[in-house]
Amino acid sequence: MTQVVCDCAVTLDGFMAGHNQSLEQPFGDIDRDALTAWMFRTPEERSAEDGMRTGIGAYIMGRNMFSPDRGEWDLDWRGWWGEDPPYHAPVFVLTHYAREPLPMEGGTTFHFVTDGIESALAQAREAAGDRDIAIAGGATTINEFLAAGLLDELRIHRVPAVTGGGVRLFEGVGPLTLEAVSTRQAELVTHTIYRVLHD
Amino acid sequence: MTQVVCDCAVTLDGFMAGHNQSLEQPFGDIDRDALTAWMFRTPEERSAEDGMRTGIGAYIMGRNMFSPDRGEWDLDWRGWWGEDPPYHAPVFVLTHYAREPLPMEGGTTFHFVTDGIESALAQAREAAGDRDIAIAGGATTINEFLAAGLLDELRIHRVPAVTGGGVRLFEGVGPLTLEAVSTRQAELVTHTIYRVLHD
Repeated sequence: MTQVVCDCAVTLDGFMAGHNQSLEQPFGDIDRDALTAWMFRTPEERSAEDGMRTGIGAYIMGRNMFSPDRGEWDLDWRGWWGEDPPYHAPVFVLTHYAREPLPMEGGTTFHFVTDGIESALAQAREAAGDRDIAIAGGATTINEFLAAGLLDELRIHRVPAVTGGGVRLFEGVGPLTLEAVSTRQAELVTHTIYRVLHD
Repeated sequence: MTQVVCDCAVTLDGFMAGHNQSLEQPFGDIDRDALTAWMFRTPEERSAEDGMRTGIGAYIMGRNMFSPDRGEWDLDWRGWWGEDPPYHAPVFVLTHYAREPLPMEGGTTFHFVTDGIESALAQAREAAGDRDIAIAGGATTINEFLAAGLLDELRIHRVPAVTGGGVRLFEGVGPLTLEAVSTRQAELVTHTIYRVLHD
């Protein structure tokens, strides 16, 4: 059965990004290296088993993760990732502003969804078929899915830094019970896979 | 060399206790079982390697961890733990109110320190000799030691529950870099040992 999964890099004090995110600093005023250095290590540091999930049929992301701007679209903006984004699948972007689908190279097409997370999830399910759906971020979007009980698996990549401020994973997410399925300590990060227990 | 260490049970969203701590609910309005159930498992779940640190020469704790009351001492209050507390070593209690040392059974003596964490640490060092010193809690006291750069090793016992509110580990602790030394996944908890990197 299709699972809704999410990979997130989180500081020891629970932040996924700093304050003041912008074009110049997409992660905001956080120590970005502390948060992401592990992603650029050797393949064994980011194997399919312990690193990012592979075989995803569709992605969902927040507007903030796709674009540094708010409001009406600047149609010249085609995402942070160049002409061949690393998704290679449909990506459903949550936004208040309609926009035509944006096909990129390598199989990635950005679709813009203006009627909320349940609609985005329905469209992602349709696109993904039997494969899993990943919530790509950012923290606000992940928290919305968690609060709505729509996430099945959370893969936390915990970096050993305390940054002191920013956007928190789990902010505003009510009581929730998970189960830790497995943990692996890599050189720069602790990978733990959690299953969200639905009542 | 003597290390200053700390074991703490923390929820997935970073809380060590709920709000409204009292005599009736020393952990406040948090799901206490979620936080502490792992402590009452079989010995292999709480081995010396992965569970609580052993061989401690002295402990330091906050007033709040010793007593549910504030202000002047009720001298009938002898701690939460009965006549034979589980410390079996000197315990230095941070407080604004002086009180005579309180010897208990089994080697535990509570000493009351009114002149701050550095004084408590100096007294604990004197008492511990070559052995390590443990910060017993609660979160506020641990955060004070972290912020002052006085903690060497943090052993986080992470339970897979999101509780949504309470007293946070790392609250008000500025930027800090740690190193994850090892991690082990037990049935109910993920044990990770961190070394605090001092500049």
